Order: sequence, then C-alpha cells, then structure tokens
Amino acid sequence: MSITEPILRPDPRSDAESPDDVSTKVDPGGGSDTVRRFLEVRSLTDALAERLSPEDQTPQSMTEASPAKWHRAHVTWFFEEFILRQDPDYAVYDETFRYLFNSYYEAVGERHPRPDRGLVTRPGVRDVTRYREHVDAAMVEALEAGRLDDAALGLVELGCNHEQQHQELLLMDIKHLFSTHAFGPVYVDREPDSPGDPAPIGWREFAGGVHEIGAVGSGFSYDNEGPRHREYLEDFAVSDRLVTNADWLEFMADDGYRRHEFWLSDGWAKVNETGWQAPGYWREEDDGGWTTFTLSGRRPVVPDEPVTHVSFYEADAYARWAGARLPTEFEWEAAAGTLGDARGQLLDPGRCHPGRAGSAMVGEVWEWTASAYLPYPGFVPANGAVGEYNGKFMSDQHVLRGASAVTPMGHERITYRNFFPAASRWVFSGLRLAR
Amino acid sequence: MSITEPILRPDPRSDAESPDDVSTKVDPGGGSDTVRRFLEVRSLTDALAERLSPEDQTPQSMTEASPAKWHRAHVTWFFEEFILRQDPDYAVYDETFRYLFNSYYEAVGERHPRPDRGLVTRPGVRDVTRYREHVDAAMVEALEAGRLDDAALGLVELGCNHEQQHQELLLMDIKHLFSTHAFGPVYVDREPDSPGDPAPIGWREFAGGVHEIGAVGSGFSYDNEGPRHREYLEDFAVSDRLVTNADWLEFMADDGYRRHEFWLSDGWAKVNETGWQAPGYWREEDDGGWTTFTLSGRRPVVPDEPVTHVSFYEADAYARWAGARLPTEFEWEAAAGTLGDARGQLLDPGRCHPGRAGSAMVGEVWEWTASAYLPYPGFVPANGAVGEYNGKFMSDQHVLRGASAVTPMGHERITYRNFFPAASRWVFSGLRLAR
Amino acid sequence: MSITEPILRPDPRSDAESPDDVSTKVDPGGGSDTVRRFLEVRSLTDALAERLSPEDQTPQSMTEASPAKWHRAHVTWFFEEFILRQDPDYAVYDETFRYLFNSYYEAVGERHPRPDRGLVTRPGVRDVTRYREHVDAAMVEALEAGRLDDAALGLVELGCNHEQQHQELLLMDIKHLFSTHAFGPVYVDREPDSPGDPAPIGWREFAGGVHEIGAVGSGFSYDNEGPRHREYLEDFAVSDRLVTNADWLEFMADDGYRRHEFWLSDGWAKVNETGWQAPGYWREEDDGGWTTFTLSGRRPVVPDEPVTHVSFYEADAYARWAGARLPTEFEWEAAAGTLGDARGQLLDPGRCHPGRAGSAMVGEVWEWTASAYLPYPGFVPANGAVGEYNGKFMSDQHVLRGASAVTPMGHERITYRNFFPAASRWVFSGLRLAR
Amino acid sequence: MSITEPILRPDPRSDAESPDDVSTKVDPGGGSDTVRRFLEVRSLTDALAERLSPEDQTPQSMTEASPAKWHRAHVTWFFEEFILRQDPDYAVYDETFRYLFNSYYEAVGERHPRPDRGLVTRPGVRDVTRYREHVDAAMVEALEAGRLDDAALGLVELGCNHEQQHQELLLMDIKHLFSTHAFGPVYVDREPDSPGDPAPIGWREFAGGVHEIGAVGSGFSYDNEGPRHREYLEDFAVSDRLVTNADWLEFMADDGYRRHEFWLSDGWAKVNETGWQAPGYWREEDDGGWTTFTLSGRRPVVPDEPVTHVSFYEADAYARWAGARLPTEFEWEAAAGTLGDARGQLLDPGRCHPGRAGSAMVGEVWEWTASAYLPYPGFVPANGAVGEYNGKFMSDQHVLRGASAVTPMGHERITYRNFFPAASRWVFSGLRLAR
Repeated sequence: MSITEPILRPDPRSDAESPDDVSTKVDPGGGSDTVRRFLEVRSLTDALAERLSPEDQTPQSMTEASPAKWHRAHVTWFFEEFILRQDPDYAVYDETFRYLFNSYYEAVGERHPRPDRGLVTRPGVRDVTRYREHVDAAMVEALEAGRLDDAALGLVELGCNHEQQHQELLLMDIKHLFSTHAFGPVYVDREPDSPGDPAPIGWREFAGGVHEIGAVGSGFSYDNEGPRHREYLEDFAVSDRLVTNADWLEFMADDGYRRHEFWLSDGWAKVNETGWQAPGYWREEDDGGWTTFTLSGRRPVVPDEPVTHVSFYEADAYARWAGARLPTEFEWEAAAGTLGDARGQLLDPGRCHPGRAGSAMVGEVWEWTASAYLPYPGFVPANGAVGEYNGKFMSDQHVLRGASAVTPMGHERITYRNFFPAASRWVFSGLRLAR
Repeated sequence: MSITEPILRPDPRSDAESPDDVSTKVDPGGGSDTVRRFLEVRSLTDALAERLSPEDQTPQSMTEASPAKWHRAHVTWFFEEFILRQDPDYAVYDETFRYLFNSYYEAVGERHPRPDRGLVTRPGVRDVTRYREHVDAAMVEALEAGRLDDAALGLVELGCNHEQQHQELLLMDIKHLFSTHAFGPVYVDREPDSPGDPAPIGWREFAGGVHEIGAVGSGFSYDNEGPRHREYLEDFAVSDRLVTNADWLEFMADDGYRRHEFWLSDGWAKVNETGWQAPGYWREEDDGGWTTFTLSGRRPVVPDEPVTHVSFYEADAYARWAGARLPTEFEWEAAAGTLGDARGQLLDPGRCHPGRAGSAMVGEVWEWTASAYLPYPGFVPANGAVGEYNGKFMSDQHVLRGASAVTPMGHERITYRNFFPAASRWVFSGLRLAR
Repeated sequence: MSITEPILRPDPRSDAESPDDVSTKVDPGGGSDTVRRFLEVRSLTDALAERLSPEDQTPQSMTEASPAKWHRAHVTWFFEEFILRQDPDYAVYDETFRYLFNSYYEAVGERHPRPDRGLVTRPGVRDVTRYREHVDAAMVEALEAGRLDDAALGLVELGCNHEQQHQELLLMDIKHLFSTHAFGPVYVDREPDSPGDPAPIGWREFAGGVHEIGAVGSGFSYDNEGPRHREYLEDFAVSDRLVTNADWLEFMADDGYRRHEFWLSDGWAKVNETGWQAPGYWREEDDGGWTTFTLSGRRPVVPDEPVTHVSFYEADAYARWAGARLPTEFEWEAAAGTLGDARGQLLDPGRCHPGRAGSAMVGEVWEWTASAYLPYPGFVPANGAVGEYNGKFMSDQHVLRGASAVTPMGHERITYRNFFPAASRWVFSGLRLAR
Repeated sequence: MSITEPILRPDPRSDAESPDDVSTKVDPGGGSDTVRRFLEVRSLTDALAERLSPEDQTPQSMTEASPAKWHRAHVTWFFEEFILRQDPDYAVYDETFRYLFNSYYEAVGERHPRPDRGLVTRPGVRDVTRYREHVDAAMVEALEAGRLDDAALGLVELGCNHEQQHQELLLMDIKHLFSTHAFGPVYVDREPDSPGDPAPIGWREFAGGVHEIGAVGSGFSYDNEGPRHREYLEDFAVSDRLVTNADWLEFMADDGYRRHEFWLSDGWAKVNETGWQAPGYWREEDDGGWTTFTLSGRRPVVPDEPVTHVSFYEADAYARWAGARLPTEFEWEAAAGTLGDARGQLLDPGRCHPGRAGSAMVGEVWEWTASAYLPYPGFVPANGAVGEYNGKFMSDQHVLRGASAVTPMGHERITYRNFFPAASRWVFSGLRLAR
C-alpha cells in the first residue's frame, strides 16, 4: 500500500501488527540500494553543515537545541552503537564518544548532560568529520559484504530516518542560534519573496464512522505510527489551506494575544509570563511593520506564507478565535489520506523556508493537532535501547502532522507523528483549522 | 438512565447533546428539596472546618493548595457571584471579596494572586463564617421565594457540586499542610487499622467495538463529561481490584524506582530530580518499616489498602513493571458501567482515609488513566464566566476516574472526569491495571 | 560611661575587652530591678501582638520575615533554652518547641526550615500565650529566688535585648504582610500627619585623627559592638538632618532611578530586575501623587518626614546624585558621640511611624552607612550557642546606625551596629549624607 | 621598617594622590618603549590563545566566565573604544563590535547580554585575529606618530593592564570550561610535580600604629588602589607561608566541611546547598586519594603546593578551624611592604599552575583577606566610561591580595586590590593566616 492511497476503508492487514514485532517496520534489502540510500542521507548532513564555521557548530542556544557538531556526531554514534558494535571486529573510533554523543538512551549508559552539549569543544569539527568517515567506511563495507542481517538492516533504515530527523533539528537549532545574534547571520543567501494574496479558506468535508489509522505495509515507519487500528470519528471538515501570516495579523489586530477567552489556562499563563504578542522570530519594526528572522536573515513577513513558529497554545487560541478548532491527529490522517500524493515545499537546501500556503497537507509547516501524544492501542516499543526512541516521550506532548520546509524529502509520511511540548516555538510549526 | 446502568450498548439519546446546550446538565427544581440539598452541602463544609483552628485555616502550604478559610469563602463567593449578584436587591456582603476569593475566572476580573492566598489574614475565620451565613440566608430566601429561574437553579446545582469538590480539596490541602509539620498534627482521631492480606488480582474481560461514552440523562454532570459520543475500543481487560500497598512494596523491593526501563522520560527526570523512592507521605523508619502520614497522623502502611498519593508517572511505571498498562478513561468507563452501583469508601468524616481495596470501581482512591484530559468531540463550554470551569484546563493534564475516600458522598459518577498534572501526589490517587 | 558621652577621646579601659570575655557586656544584678525590666520587655511584646488576630499572627509573607506568633514563641524559647534548661528541675513546656522555635542556632540542633515558618499552625496563638506565661513564671521565680549566677543574669539581659529586636522585627514583618493585602489592613489607627516644609540641609564638620570606636563600660551591648578600638579618620562632615521624602522626590524627578551613573553595578542590576522606581511601599496614584503604606494604612507621602524603606543601593545612589556619600559607621559613631542624648522618634505603639526629620541622630529611621558589616579587630564571639548571635553574619551585609520609629525605647545605642543585606527594603531604613 | 616606607623603590611624591587626580596613575611616555610594552602585552594574549581551537574559543561555561574569543576581542575593543575612536580619521573595523564586545560600560551603550557570550559565533576566531591586527596597526601608528596626548597614553597603559587582567581571566575560564569535559582536555603539557613536604608555618610579627596604605608614585596603578591614606592597625602577625594542600587535607580530615562552628552563616548555607567537601576541581578517586583538575589535565593533589580554588567562605572557615583569622587587606599590604621584591611563580605559560608554597607574598595564589571591597577615603572614579572600571563593583565583594601563577608578570603590585564574590572558586585563590 502506498502512503498516498486513501485510508478510509478497512484494511485486511490491520491485525498484522503484533506486540512481538520490532518497533520499526522496514523492508530490509541490503546491497547497493541500501548503500546508496545510506550515503545520500549521510552526505546531505555534511552538505547542510558545510555552510557553518567551526564556531557556528559549537554552541547550544537553549537546552532543547543541540550544537550542529553534536548532531553530526550523534547520528554517527547511532550507527556505531546499534549496528557496528555488534561486530566484534569493528574498531571503535573513540570510546569516549559513547559518553559524549549518546542523546537519551538510558540503556546505553551514562551520558554527557544535555544542557552542556555546547561545552564539548573536543572533538572539534575536523575530528567529527573524521569520525563520520570512519563510520561510513565501516558501514559501507559491512553493507557491501552482506554482513548485516535483517534486524541490522532494519536498524540501518531506522538510522537513516533518525539522521533525517536530525537534519531538520540541525536547521531548527541553527535558526535559533543565529536569531540570538543581534546582527542576524545568514545561513543561506536567497532572493526575497514577493508578497501575494492568500486565497480564502475553504473546507473539505469528511464523513464519520470507523476509520483505520496508523502505518501499514512494507514501507518504513516509526514504531509510534502503529499498530494500525480503528478510531471512531464523527463527521468533520478541515480547511483546504494552512493559516497564513495574513490571517495571523488579523488575529493580532483583533487583540488575540490580549483576550483570555481564546486561551487555554496554561497558554494564557505563558502569554503573560513571556509577553508573546506575535509568532516566534517576529519583530515589530519602527514603521509598525513586522519582520521575521529566517535562515536567510531578517525579512518582512510575507502575507500568503503559512504562519510558522507558533506554539500549540497559540494555534489553539487562533482556532478558537476563528470559531473553529484544531483537527485531531486521526481526522488529519483520514483527510490527508484522500488527497493523493501532492507535497508542498519540503527541504530545499537553497531555501530552508516555507513557500506559499497551497493545497497539499504535507510539506510547508508541521501542523499542530488537538491530540495528545499517546500510544496507539496495543503499542509496544522495541526491545533494547532503540525501544527508547519514541515510547518514553508519550506524556504531555502534542502531535503535529504533515512535514515542514526543513523536513528532508522522503522523510515525510501521512502516518508520521511528530510531537513537541505545547509551548515550543522553534519548530517550523503552523496550523490548519477543523470544525 | 442511572449512572450505574451498563453503557456498553447504543443509546438512542446520544444525539441529545448539542453544542448549544449549557455546559452542565441538571434537573432544576427549586423548592424545599433544593434548599435541603443546598444546606446539606453547605453544612458539611462547616463541619469539616470545625476541627481546624483559625491558625490551621490560614496558611497555604504550596501553590496548588489553598487555605481552608479560602476554600470556605471561595465556594460562598461562587453563589454570590453567579447567582445572588443577578438580583439587584441583593446586598453584597463585602465588595472586596470579589477580588479576594475569585479563583481563576478571568471574565470576573482581577483577583488575588494564587501563590499568596495564605497571606490574606483578613477576613478572619469568624468573618468568613458570617459571610457564609449571609449568603446562605440570601440563597435560602431566594430559593424559597421561587425567585430563581431554571438557569439560576442549574447554577445552584453547579455551586453545590463545586463546593463538594472543594470539600475534597480542603481535606487534601489540610493533609498536605499538616504533613509539613515535624510533629504531625491530627485532623481526626481514629483507631489504627488492622492489617489484612490483599486478595490476588483477577481480570475482568470486555469485548471491543463502538461504545457510547459520556454523561447522558437528567442527572447533574459537568460540561466536560459530554457530549455523549462514540469511541471504538479494542478488546480489553481491567484488574478486579486496585493496586495495594503490598503490591507497591514489591515494586519498590524490585528497584522499581531505580530502573529507568519502566519510566516515561519525564517521569524518570522527576524521580531523579526529586528523589522519589516511595509514594507521597511515606517515610522509611529506623526499623526499615514504612509509615505514611494520614489525617489521623503518621501510621504504619497497611498492606491491603490501595496505594495512594502516587503520581501518574509512578502509576504508569508500576503498570509497566507489572507487565500491564493503565486503562484509558473510555475503557474505565465502559468497565465501570457494567458493575452495578457498588461503591467503595467515600468521604466518612470520622475516617478520611481509604479502606481495604475491594471490588467496587468508585470510591477509595482516584484512579489514574492512560488518557490525556481533552475535550470530547463537539465539546463547547458554557457561555460566560462559568464556561471557564473545566474547558480551559484541557492541556497537559491526565484523567483520573472513580472517586476517593475524601470525595463527598453523592458527588461521585462513573462519567466523572477528574484531572491533575502528571506529577501530582497530594491527590488521593492510585491505580488499577489494564491489558 | 553613658552612651551619650563623647567618644572622641582615648578610653583607658579600651583594653578591657579580651577574647575570653563573654560576648555581651552587661551589668548583672538580679533582684527586683531585673524582674521589672524583664516583665516590662515581655509585656510590650504581648501588647504589640494584641492588635493581631490569630490569623494575622500565622503567615510569613517572605522568607526574611517571620509570623508574629513565631516571634512571640521564639523570644520565649531563648529564655527557656539558654537559661531555664540549665536548671535540672525546670519543667520544659513542650519539647517540640526546641525544634519549632529555634531560629538559627546550629549548636542547639536541627530546626524547622526557615521558609516554612508560616506553616506551623500548631501551637496556636493561645498555646503560645500559655507558653509565654509558663516561661515568665519560671523566670520570675528563678530571679526572685536569686538562683541565677552572673553568667545567667547576663543572658537575661541579652534575652531582653533579643526580645526588643524581635519587637521591631514583628512590626516590620506585620507591615510587610499587611502591605501584600490589596485592601491595606490597619495595625494602628492614627490621625494623618499634616505636611510641613523640610529644613535645608546643613553640615556638621569633624576633625580627623585616631578615634576610639565601640562599646565600653558597664552598660549592656552586643558582642559585635566591641572590642573598643582605634580607627583613623580623615576630616569629614555629616548632614545635620536625614534625607526627607521631599529630597527623594527630587531625586526621582531627576530620573535618579533611570541613570546608571549613580548606581553600584549590583544596585543597577537590581533596579532593572525589580523595576524599582520609588522607595518600598510607595505607589503612584492616578493623580500622579505618591502614597506609602504605613501601619495605619495607605497614606500620602509627607514631604518633611525622613525617607524610609530604601535599600542600601538606593541610599548609595541618592548620595552620589547629591554629590555626597554615605558616612562610614566610624564617622557616624564619632559624630553621634558629640551630640548629647537627643533622641528622635522611637517606638510609640500608638504611632509606629517616623516623625519629622529632626536634628537627633538616633530614632526615626535606621541610617545606611558605607561600611560593610565586619568584625572589629580582636572580636571573638562568645562560647556556645549564643556565640552565633552576631558573628556568623559578618559577610556581605551592610551596617545601619541609629534606630527607628519602631525600635523599642531603651534599646538604642550609638555604638549599636544593625546590619542587613544591600537590597533590603522592609527595614525602616533611610540615610544621612556625608562628605 | 615602617609600612609607610617605599615598597618597591623610593617615591618622594607619596602625598601626590588627591581626590582630584584621574583614577589611574601612569607614567605616560609614548614612543618606542610604549610601543614595545603594548606589543608585548598583545602578543602574549595571542600566544595564550594559540593552543585553543576555534571550538575551544567559542563557549562560555558559566555566566561569570567568557569565551576566549570574546576576551581577545573585548580587550581590543577597549583600545578602539577609548583611544582610537577619539581620532576622527580612524576607520572603525566593524561597528557591530561596539555592541558585541562591550563588557559592562553603561556609558558606552547597549551591549550583548553577558550570559549569552557563548552564542556569538560570528565574528569567528579568524576574524577576531584580523580585528586585533587592525587595531594593533592603528595603535602602533598613532603611538609612533606621537599623536596620543597624556590622557590617551594613560589609557594605553590602562588598556595594557586591562588586557593582562583578561589574560588571567582567559586562563581561569579555559580551566573551568575544560573541567566540564568528562575526559579532561589538556591546555599545556607538563611533567607531573614531585610531591614534597610543606614547611611548618611560622609567624611574622608587625607592630600596630598608623600606617599608610595605597598606591603612590609614578608607576601605574588602578584608581581603586588610591588615594593613599592612613589606617590604624593593631599589632598583628601573618603566617610566613601560604596554607597548603596538606594543611587543607587535615582540615577535611577533621570534618572541617561538616562542622558549622567554623563557618559564616552564608558559607554554611552554601556548603549545604552545593555539597562542597573539598576545594574546587578536587575529586576523590576510588582509592580514596584526591586529584585536582589542572590546565595540564587531572593530577594528584600535591601536598606542598598552596591550596587554591577555595572560596572566601572556605578560607575563612579554615582560618577559624586553625585558631587564626584572615588578615585584613591593610595588614596584608603592610606586611608585604616589608619583604622586598621577592616574587613567587607568576604566569609561566609552560606551567599555568602554582609551584611550592614559598616565602613570597606575591605570585602563587591570590589570597583572600578579611576585608570587604570598599572605596578608600576620598576615592573618586575617573570621569567618563572608564570610571566604571572599578568603582561600581564596590559592594558585597571581597578583597584578594598578592597575585597568582596565572597573573602575567609585571601586572602584580602589593597595592593591587583584586576582588571577587565570596563564593567564587574559579579564581586561583588561596589564603594566608593572621592573628
């Protein structure tokens, strides 16, 4: 089943997912396709980092973010730790890296404290590059020699997806880091966008009933996307485009940030504590116009672009102001499943910024849903350390669906469940309305 | 429909709940029944406070808690603000109380800062009593004169339920306050319980399918219990009794608090930050035995009592350790609906502590569920300030079902959705397993 | 030697203070004078507390403050702990009070955590009163029976002075507590002051040279007032009156709170962090006028009253703005020693507020000096727990001299060294200029 | 020898220091000597940084520390801001640097927030080097052309001293940064020291009386070292060597960190809050021995080295435990003035660590004194922004005297007043006893 096929009908294989399966589903294969896939992913990381000086790659601008250098080493550690170390003949590059570049895998052991990742100046950028080359060579050799069994090949695919996630994080983190600089460094040069007029919002209607939700079939998906299961949905509608900057400016003009009646209690507390009065990275200029910080520096806000860098609280308040609500993740998935394979922007390294808000549901900005991030019925994480990948974060986070303009191409899926805490704003996050 | 009837079958009236309804459903009635009901609720509050000195009623031992004196005034303010003030002839007792005793109703206006409730020494206890008498007299007069319309009578019932909630909070808060005292004051004298043997855990099996969930019919319920709607459930089972202190001691003995593999990531962080190694109020004594602080002072832990004062994180970790999971709130409600009207220990002012873990699903301790506290499909809060009662808290909280040994009798319902943040431990909260 | 005698000449007894002496110098005497003195001090505490309800006496409005009830018990504990417990026949009133009412004497043992003093609801006010009566009876009995030796009689005098200090603290703390109440409770009713015109500031000139500083002779003084020793002073002058509210309004009008050049670095950080723009308890009213909270409620600022509730940082900034500086504590003492025994407003329970700024250097408000609170050369604290009275606080605090309108009469001395951290504003603290 | 005798060489003008003088005393001169001096100082900074990678030079490991790259740019900014910008023909290197590299000069304008210095990745190390070269060229050109007047030449000398201070800070900060790394990077390779036996402590006695204190004469000194003035001292003695690691181990073995009676109240609170049980950078190894982190990596503690990285609180507690006290800064200066020009270690870039505790009073570790950092009588800061150099920090800091093994040679003076908050431990700080 292709991920672009409609999913609003029963699937005979929906019971194929048993708790004994590994947490990630993949069609392993080894051989040259896997090598090519592996090297493509790896080289994109290096390409993204090439524009960054050693100094740029070192700091951590907030606890949630990580240094670019750390991202590059951590994704490499993932292959070394979970695949290469299984081979007793593998020569570990540096035993200290297990401590320095483990992110949160308790089962692997002690690790460097997360808030201090920006203090690890050694290894430096050059040594991290050598580490990457060492692991790449060992991986390619193992793949080409056919030494990896199916479980290991599943981990290769997981590792590639993991690295793609970190490519997006690297760009989010660099954007945050650069935004703290008073004089706005530029990550990628690009021409200014010409402003256009957003289209009016229309609605797509969907009939309720029992729907099948979750990943199915032979393509890769994370463990948290399954088991495929049934959800009962009432009739619903979702808007046919994302909320735009122009829409958001109306909300602001209508005192959206100053009227408690639109806000969840925690969101209202956050607004009052932080003084939010516009999306993340926005700034009101002396002439009353608004600019936003982009990976190409500070730019005027473009009206027909989808709004981004809003928190769940803001998205939820906007929806209430608009007389609507956020879709649940199940509604979102059911709706997206009917739309064919249209994709929006996705990662273009020469742009790294959303385009116009179009009709596709995947690819401009991640869309906050009304759903809490919880396990699907029957969810069981994989055994071992990789079981920590997703499951242990299933409390007090909120699901985002779709994908953004910094999500690497091929990493998107309509069953994909992204998740962040309600107050997060450094994600490329926006929203779509439901009713 | 009685709340104890089974709900595992279609309900023809399930479409009765439309978004235009008021947020709380009640069978208004006025007259002497309402007066009697009103006065019963009011007098229980006074009875609970009678054992407390003016000094006991003044402090606030943490931000989440409130002074007993404040509870007594705030529930009174609720009747004055939402009912009596509608009558232009009503003589407001003291205009400053609107500011001092509003809890969180933004629509009512500015209010005293929550963390500083313990600093409001004036009005004193005696004046609060006079305030209560003033409002009671006006309420009884209005009720007996038949001056309240149906909407107002609905608010009377809401106010009574509101006051019952605060009766439970008052006892939770006093327990917390007294527990900070090195020499453990006693709220209620009572004989020690004799320890017994917990029964082995059994399982009740339930068939999946589309289930109707939520409040229905003429009895009172909060707005967040509706609209009644359909949920698709897979087959499931719930344990036939609560987890006991004896069970919990096994978890502790098996290093449950020291093995990351049982814990959600946020829970594990909390354990490491706080040093939790046992439920709230527990203390290891010099002889290695465990005691717990109760409203009758410090007592040895009784093995066959249900464990209580555990956080969601602990409940979730315990369930994982036990090879099980927490039920969702829908599973819980479906299961409880089949069990008739058996009730465990509800508030007995001479005890204020759970009894043995028995077969009833309501009473003893609130039960953490796996569900996040989210709106039911089609949920719309009431208009006006009372619309802030429940809806604005629907993010990052967790649903508890059942009721506890400090929940006033008559306040419990199987559709009742209690909710607290994941780390809360001052609730009388325990758990039941599911699989 | 009277404390009002000039101190600008060598004192033959300056070497009388040896490290072996007890920390406080007192002319013990026992007998009926001591009993009368003891009872007078004790009864003033009760008189000050009489206006406070049990609720008023319970909370702690900030960590630095204490509940009135706690003050009353703590000063009683001091007599019990350090004097009565030496008598094996003494019947301790309640053994738990040793834990509950020890302030900071590490040598006495564990104690109730300071930030939680407001949570100790038991003993209540009535029981604290009984505790006071119990200890008073035992003290009087011991004094009248002549059972106390000289060391113990020294501790009686220390205990009386200790209680006087807490009388001032009780009033400071009640003022702070009441000020947090939106509707400003009144501690003492009193007529509004009529505003007058402050006199122009004049200067008193003093010749430099070697001066003797510190307490001497048979009158009581704290250990930190000695040993009497020599200090070399340059020629200096001090202003002949305190800085007034009228003066302060000029400083404010000249942007004193917004011009960094007047401020110490830590002070400037504090101003920016807290938003200070006027003395403590001041508030700008809608008509642009300023009021201040007093123990008689909120009142318009009176121009010719000494400014009070300013921090060291503000006092220092004001002095720099005025082209002057604060006097050192040695200059202050040398100057005050020449002025005879004139006293300004000391504690009048019917007023509890400074009067006009007059010529006396003692009374009205405590005066910040330029001096850090450090030991005098040769200072050695007393042995045992009472040695913790003063010495262990000798770091990062600032000396205030004089006394305030809430300092009990008879407690003031020109050698008295009061001390508080630089940012404190709940003290009745003002300033005098030097150059 | 009286302490008012010349301290390094005779200076007839010891009374030349009046409050009207500029804040820094220097013998200006221009010409080739100044150029040589300037370039020597500048090149030492570069030499110290050469061992650091761009990554090493980027982070800030705590708010009090700064990135090496920032130090290098900030000291350069000092010359540009206060000297070169006076010349209208000077071409500013980059106008954004005024914002990025101002440390705390309010009069210069807004600046980059101190806690975020580690986030300024641009300019990078290479660009900072170019900035240094640009400023050096302009400075040399101006000096050689004789374009700088006496005031400007005074600022050149101040700038050189300022840069020397930052050389020490750079080494302190790199030590702190490297210490956070689990695998202890090495800044400078060096042979381990062989342990020796500390000599017993002896005492040097000094007679009291009126002593002259403070800088005098034509050599450079900071404004805070004057005006030279009189202090009356009692007879005193200071130990003839520093307290050593061996001494400190005795203090630890005698439960020095667990006995409240030795500690100031704030210090005891700090010990309990932080868990200090040994000097900064010390670690107890599995064999019970102690190591310390040095700029050459982790090394066993050497008994006869002076203890270092102790806070004021620890130094004060140690002195009390030893039955002694810390000297005042006046006693220290008086004592040091009698000892000729013996110097201890001072900065040897091949070592960067104290040597044996010898008889010199200057050069191994900074010595905490009992004195608060306060202005000398008649102190007036310089006009303009450089007046912020020292004066505004004169509250709640403690004076250290001497100099350390990372103080650049030629920067030490016996009138030098270093100052840090009481809890600081990343300074190379130790102590000497007095009595």
